[in-house]
Amino acid sequence: MKFRNFKMVSFVVYGRGSFNQLDEILAPHRKGDAPMIFLVDHFFENGAPTGDGKSLISRIPLRGKDKIIFADVTYEPKTTQVDKLAKQLKDEFGTVSGVIGIGGGSTLDLAKAVSLMMNNPGSSADYQGWDLVKVPGVYKAGIPTLSGTGAEVSRTTVLTGPTRKLGMNSDFTPFDQIVLDPELTANAPVNQRFYTGMDCYIHCIESLEGTYLNEFSKSYGEKALELCREVFVNKDKWDAECDDKLMMASYAGGMSIAYSQVGVAHAVSYGLSYLLGTKHGIGNCIVMNHLEPYYPEGVKEFKKMVEKNNIDIPVGICKGLTDEQFDTMINVSLGMKPLWENALGKDWEKIMTREKLRALYEKL
Amino acid sequence: MKFRNFKMVSFVVYGRGSFNQLDEILAPHRKGDAPMIFLVDHFFENGAPTGDGKSLISRIPLRGKDKIIFADVTYEPKTTQVDKLAKQLKDEFGTVSGVIGIGGGSTLDLAKAVSLMMNNPGSSADYQGWDLVKVPGVYKAGIPTLSGTGAEVSRTTVLTGPTRKLGMNSDFTPFDQIVLDPELTANAPVNQRFYTGMDCYIHCIESLEGTYLNEFSKSYGEKALELCREVFVNKDKWDAECDDKLMMASYAGGMSIAYSQVGVAHAVSYGLSYLLGTKHGIGNCIVMNHLEPYYPEGVKEFKKMVEKNNIDIPVGICKGLTDEQFDTMINVSLGMKPLWENALGKDWEKIMTREKLRALYEKL
Repeated sequence: MKFRNFKMVSFVVYGRGSFNQLDEILAPHRKGDAPMIFLVDHFFENGAPTGDGKSLISRIPLRGKDKIIFADVTYEPKTTQVDKLAKQLKDEFGTVSGVIGIGGGSTLDLAKAVSLMMNNPGSSADYQGWDLVKVPGVYKAGIPTLSGTGAEVSRTTVLTGPTRKLGMNSDFTPFDQIVLDPELTANAPVNQRFYTGMDCYIHCIESLEGTYLNEFSKSYGEKALELCREVFVNKDKWDAECDDKLMMASYAGGMSIAYSQVGVAHAVSYGLSYLLGTKHGIGNCIVMNHLEPYYPEGVKEFKKMVEKNNIDIPVGICKGLTDEQFDTMINVSLGMKPLWENALGKDWEKIMTREKLRALYEKL
Repeated sequence: MKFRNFKMVSFVVYGRGSFNQLDEILAPHRKGDAPMIFLVDHFFENGAPTGDGKSLISRIPLRGKDKIIFADVTYEPKTTQVDKLAKQLKDEFGTVSGVIGIGGGSTLDLAKAVSLMMNNPGSSADYQGWDLVKVPGVYKAGIPTLSGTGAEVSRTTVLTGPTRKLGMNSDFTPFDQIVLDPELTANAPVNQRFYTGMDCYIHCIESLEGTYLNEFSKSYGEKALELCREVFVNKDKWDAECDDKLMMASYAGGMSIAYSQVGVAHAVSYGLSYLLGTKHGIGNCIVMNHLEPYYPEGVKEFKKMVEKNNIDIPVGICKGLTDEQFDTMINVSLGMKPLWENALGKDWEKIMTREKLRALYEKL
């Protein structure tokens, strides 16, 4: 099809305190005594609280054999991690009623992938690509506790596999349910919140300045960008309204990807994360810091936001890398063809040479 | 649940010319030789063309026993009309693969209702209300040829029944698929296009100035409003970009209703349409013209748009009505409690008395 037929998330609930409805939301999806599995960002393991002061963990509506599994998202999700989790659940329970991801983009992606691998044979690495998944997963819900990635509405789940970093992109990948409760993001660490928020800001810039855009993606991208500005440029202090708006920015930014594509920052950042394990949000920021030639206005505003919000952007992370390591990053990055084409047009290969990309990596 | 768990349309395709993908989109939903039923706005019966010059009818991908039925939408959909159409299809085919609505809001609502009544017993009048529908309908797709109502994404289908004008509001009501092809709206009659576009503008004003708003609905409502302004205020001539933007305004305006509500214009206009059969778009315009006390800025801008676009808004339509007729309209209107509460707050009954409403109707 010339125009993508975009699969939407089935149900959305938005509201401060809507997390309290989770038990009621899950009830109709319980199958006999098969448990709901809550895959929770390890950030909450030590009892980290949500906006209302109670620990998130204590608020999870456990019933029967339900289980909380903490997801170690120190690094971004790997196909091996997904396969191991799915095997563990099959061994312990045979089947489960559903997988509920609670956390940032990594946790949400992990939940989507594990749900799919409960019903699809083989390894998740077999499904890295477009429309390779042929069987729906078990019921899956996503509950973001960090805003910016758009993972809550995307049709992908980005995984680092044995040979590549690529998502399981399919119509079976989007969540059946998302719960958007801005209270859950209130206690996120300031730097992490910024890096993740910038994932949204940066992909809006990349998408709005790209060549793939249409009015659907433009409407969502413009709104997301405006909300990012309200939060990171106009506001002088973080407050509840910032949590509300950034959560909608993330959602709208994710929706805008339906008919657009990210660009230079994401393409270069994928190389970093493949080689060095640099996480997505911070990796994008490290790269964006040096992209004046490609996004002059966007980079200017980005630097203003970094300064205003007192954020540290690491520098010198590519210092001392070998030629071979630079080559690995360059290969991974140049492999992201649609991103480069969106950013630089059909003739992108003439513009972004290996030498030019190497020089960019050396600056980071 | 305190916060509505909003059922989204399952698949969205947006793009100029995306209507050409309809055959491919429908293929996986055909069940044996059960036909797809194309319920088409009677406006297209005489071969009215779409943006590419070809008649819409000639572009419908008919296969096997597929059938085109022209929907007479001179008046808004009635429960009797829905029941008759569903019966006709059951008598002729037993079952159908799906119902595809192609037209304005009335046609889309009719398609949703007929789809539901293919699988639900009794009369559609039995299901006017909230969450009364218990069984999914047959596959249903919506393809707007007029932008503004938001019917393409709503969880209702407004019907005039024996005792009330009320939708079949349920999680089974939203379309399985929408095809947003702005080319299809290119040849809409100028006045009709304006009235329908104003449905979106007016419900944005009502929702953004209402008491029910949250950030989800605000984000969508603000974007829809901005797009309406670009089309009806900033543009000097109607062009393809206007079709693109107004289609997204309608979609975003529809989504914004998830957590908001319309207000005074819609509540008063429902009375007109119940008694006089006034269509929704023009009815809202007739009322909005007199709502300065409630929406001073919105009405000012509305009048500017009317003038700039050379639109005729009928006046004097309530002239000569009897007391009994006024009472009927007042009863219907005051029955729309959530609309009034959203517009005027919890104490709305003290503010909008029968006398005040009668005086407003007399002005129209």
